Amino acid sequence: MRRAEQIELALAPRPEGVLLHRWLYDELRKAILSGTLPPGARLPSTRDLATRFRLSRGTVLGVFAQLDAEGYLSGAVGRGSFVAAELPDRRIDSGERTSPRKRDGRPLARERHHDGDSGTQPPVVELSARGRLLARSAFQLSGRTRPARAFRASQPDLDAFPFELWARLSANRVRRAQRDLLRDGEAQGYRPLREVIAAYVGPSRGIRCSADNVVVLGSVQQAIDLTARLLLDPGDSAWTEDPGYPGARFVLEAAGARVIGVPVDAAGVDVSWARLHAATARLAFVTAGRQAPLGPPLALERRLSLLEWARDRGAVIIEDDYDSEYRFEGHPLAAMKSLDDHGHVIYCGTFSKLLFPALRTAYAILPDRLVEPFVAALSSTARHVPTDQQSVLHDFIADGHFGRHIRRMRMLYGERAEALTSAVERHLSGLLALAPIVAGLDAPAFLPRGADDADAARRAAREGIETRPLSLYAIDHPAPPGLVLGFASIGVEEIESGVIALARALTRRSR
Amino acid sequence: MRRAEQIELALAPRPEGVLLHRWLYDELRKAILSGTLPPGARLPSTRDLATRFRLSRGTVLGVFAQLDAEGYLSGAVGRGSFVAAELPDRRIDSGERTSPRKRDGRPLARERHHDGDSGTQPPVVELSARGRLLARSAFQLSGRTRPARAFRASQPDLDAFPFELWARLSANRVRRAQRDLLRDGEAQGYRPLREVIAAYVGPSRGIRCSADNVVVLGSVQQAIDLTARLLLDPGDSAWTEDPGYPGARFVLEAAGARVIGVPVDAAGVDVSWARLHAATARLAFVTAGRQAPLGPPLALERRLSLLEWARDRGAVIIEDDYDSEYRFEGHPLAAMKSLDDHGHVIYCGTFSKLLFPALRTAYAILPDRLVEPFVAALSSTARHVPTDQQSVLHDFIADGHFGRHIRRMRMLYGERAEALTSAVERHLSGLLALAPIVAGLDAPAFLPRGADDADAARRAAREGIETRPLSLYAIDHPAPPGLVLGFASIGVEEIESGVIALARALTRRSR
Repeated sequence: MRRAEQIELALAPRPEGVLLHRWLYDELRKAILSGTLPPGARLPSTRDLATRFRLSRGTVLGVFAQLDAEGYLSGAVGRGSFVAAELPDRRIDSGERTSPRKRDGRPLARERHHDGDSGTQPPVVELSARGRLLARSAFQLSGRTRPARAFRASQPDLDAFPFELWARLSANRVRRAQRDLLRDGEAQGYRPLREVIAAYVGPSRGIRCSADNVVVLGSVQQAIDLTARLLLDPGDSAWTEDPGYPGARFVLEAAGARVIGVPVDAAGVDVSWARLHAATARLAFVTAGRQAPLGPPLALERRLSLLEWARDRGAVIIEDDYDSEYRFEGHPLAAMKSLDDHGHVIYCGTFSKLLFPALRTAYAILPDRLVEPFVAALSSTARHVPTDQQSVLHDFIADGHFGRHIRRMRMLYGERAEALTSAVERHLSGLLALAPIVAGLDAPAFLPRGADDADAARRAAREGIETRPLSLYAIDHPAPPGLVLGFASIGVEEIESGVIALARALTRRSR
Repeated sequence: MRRAEQIELALAPRPEGVLLHRWLYDELRKAILSGTLPPGARLPSTRDLATRFRLSRGTVLGVFAQLDAEGYLSGAVGRGSFVAAELPDRRIDSGERTSPRKRDGRPLARERHHDGDSGTQPPVVELSARGRLLARSAFQLSGRTRPARAFRASQPDLDAFPFELWARLSANRVRRAQRDLLRDGEAQGYRPLREVIAAYVGPSRGIRCSADNVVVLGSVQQAIDLTARLLLDPGDSAWTEDPGYPGARFVLEAAGARVIGVPVDAAGVDVSWARLHAATARLAFVTAGRQAPLGPPLALERRLSLLEWARDRGAVIIEDDYDSEYRFEGHPLAAMKSLDDHGHVIYCGTFSKLLFPALRTAYAILPDRLVEPFVAALSSTARHVPTDQQSVLHDFIADGHFGRHIRRMRMLYGERAEALTSAVERHLSGLLALAPIVAGLDAPAFLPRGADDADAARRAAREGIETRPLSLYAIDHPAPPGLVLGFASIGVEEIESGVIALARALTRRSR
């Protein structure tokens, strides 16, 4: 092994604020990687370096030990330190290639496969075929930096949330600092939270289940993703409503499902159509409580037919019950899950729309035999939802604040739904027909047949009005032209002025 | 349409505590579904029901409206309410089948496909082929209900965490109740947190990056899962270390990767072997800082060879830097990511091992061109980490508490590593050879060649000692027999007594 003579080192001066040992380490490493100190070169003695750069000898020894641990140096005790001989001459980014080296008697595998391409440019990291489907999101990646405005959809009113109360509960929990809650939590979710969720969905949604069936998740998206991956193999078919929730469609496609859009009419998704045209699907995604985006609840007869199909086929139904807590007339509809006697329905609910979006806590209610695989899949791909937050949410529900908040919001949003209905009648008659609002945080409003709703949404945006065109929700079938209008997060005055602005936007075109 | 005569209804008495409207709704629904009120049957008038069961007429009207909305009833105004004619005679779980019905002139699709099986038993929901791989977790699903004990691996000391401080920061944040932090957050993570992470990995790990390259996640598992799905198609190969971290192996296999175990020696994973035997892999998972479970850092020459391979192939390297903050000699090793000039390394770190496990916050540092697809994939499959928690973590880091905590723990865990080393020498000489501990929260201790480490772990468990046999980490190649011993979460006295108990367990066999 060649041992080069000791080299006189020129190190760059130490920038202000950089610690001595950091500076020395960086400079030596740079010298080695750049070839200033070639493989086999002897380093100055630690004593020399210390004297020359006015460092303590301990500092220099520490840096040498570090470089040694990282493989830059090799040294025999008492004989000085040398740059490791097996180090490549240059960093791999120099663009030059070293000749094949030998190590342990085996040639380094350096052959390059160009897949029939003689290019000298190395391949970049490319997304896989399925990766290209996964790299799409239906959500605004940048988050919501601006306050709600007319007519943002799916948004609760944050000003109406009792944050002081939430802060108090949170402070109480943190103060207790229970050691139990700091360790790895149960992957299925904090048990007391699962218990209050099970107790809540009984009377409110007609679902008989225990805490053992409840899984706490970060989002309904996660539930859809895990369900699809657990139960479908790539290429298996899945039904979604058409028009339907793009979030579900994207994540199903990313999981390799062949998504089939099933038409929706006034009774919800057309189950007969689906059974006729795509009976062999393995999964159905439905918003049975209030079809997203069109609004009708799924008719009982169709619910039963859907359950029958699932039972006949061993298929699974994902029921995304995203906002039916907010039903302004009568009581919340019983969930489809309440009719699921054979374990084919995975019911999903979320707290992000009931409390505040950044909470990011949702839940799924699973048939017995799917709980364990689902929880294992959650644990393996994401571990669990932070326990701290789950415990505060538990207290909020257990102390009755949740129920009170929902009742207050139902009243408030009901008034806003009426304000929107009345304002649309007064200012948008003939331009936009609002569907009767019986539930939810938003409603579809229909444009005249043949209208271009994407264009209408763009014109609305120019007036400062946020809407979502129904065409955004279309899958295989054209959606009726219309705009989804959110009314829950803004006051009645803003609803009124928003409708006037929207009328201005739509009239400009009609003229 | 047949209109049955009005039926005298016998409703079960109302159980105590059940609200009037809930009771009436349940009873009527039950009567309809059971066939007591058959399709087409006329319901008693609301006035009659109200009188007979001493209810307000409003209550009865509300229940009727609810049943109507759900599709159980159909009625013409003024003519009374009828059970919907198109309702099946019985619930689908009755086991009996009705004859095919017609609706809208179309036959209901009722044909059953039995896949060549004449069975009368309907199929249950089965996991898909890939679902069976997904339904495995390397983690304890029930969480950690008991305090740490000797020698649980990968656990920080929760008693040493400054919870009062954390509580104060948390309370400050909650008190401010910034509306901005309640809306949908940035999918990539709370920007100020990403900024302090980028500032931290610079000096500590040698990684030059900006907040734009940082993504906040719930766990490193999530980073592995998303990376594999984004960059690999099913059947593509991935390297993992062998023995290696089972969490990575499971999630890679669940994502459809063909996992190839690459042998590990004293210089880390044998990159030459991998380039020779599986050059066409598309992904490599490495614990370069401290190989899990054997301990050595990946030698520089191998790091460069691995990077070169990735560059030649357009492959990606996941660097899981799970605990190299805790290096007891010298400074933390620079990360492989610090050598990644061409965007092939996804670096992952976690706060769950540095602060407390239930925090469940991790991060990935990504090459520029992978950030956007990765963030979209995160958003689509999980949305984002709760903002509240991210903001508290930000404050903890920005105010300098994080750095102080790490330094304190490094000292504490270093003492414990020494205590373990000394106790093993004194009590387990000849039975168990502990690798020199230079970093981390745990260390492998080797049993004599040919020993059965799973049996040794079982015997240790009978003495109340938690260990993980190295054979648990084996993939394609046998691992040397040994036990992973965690030393960070327990005091020196418990380490001493734990080693004595372990000696008892192992001697019993040797006798």
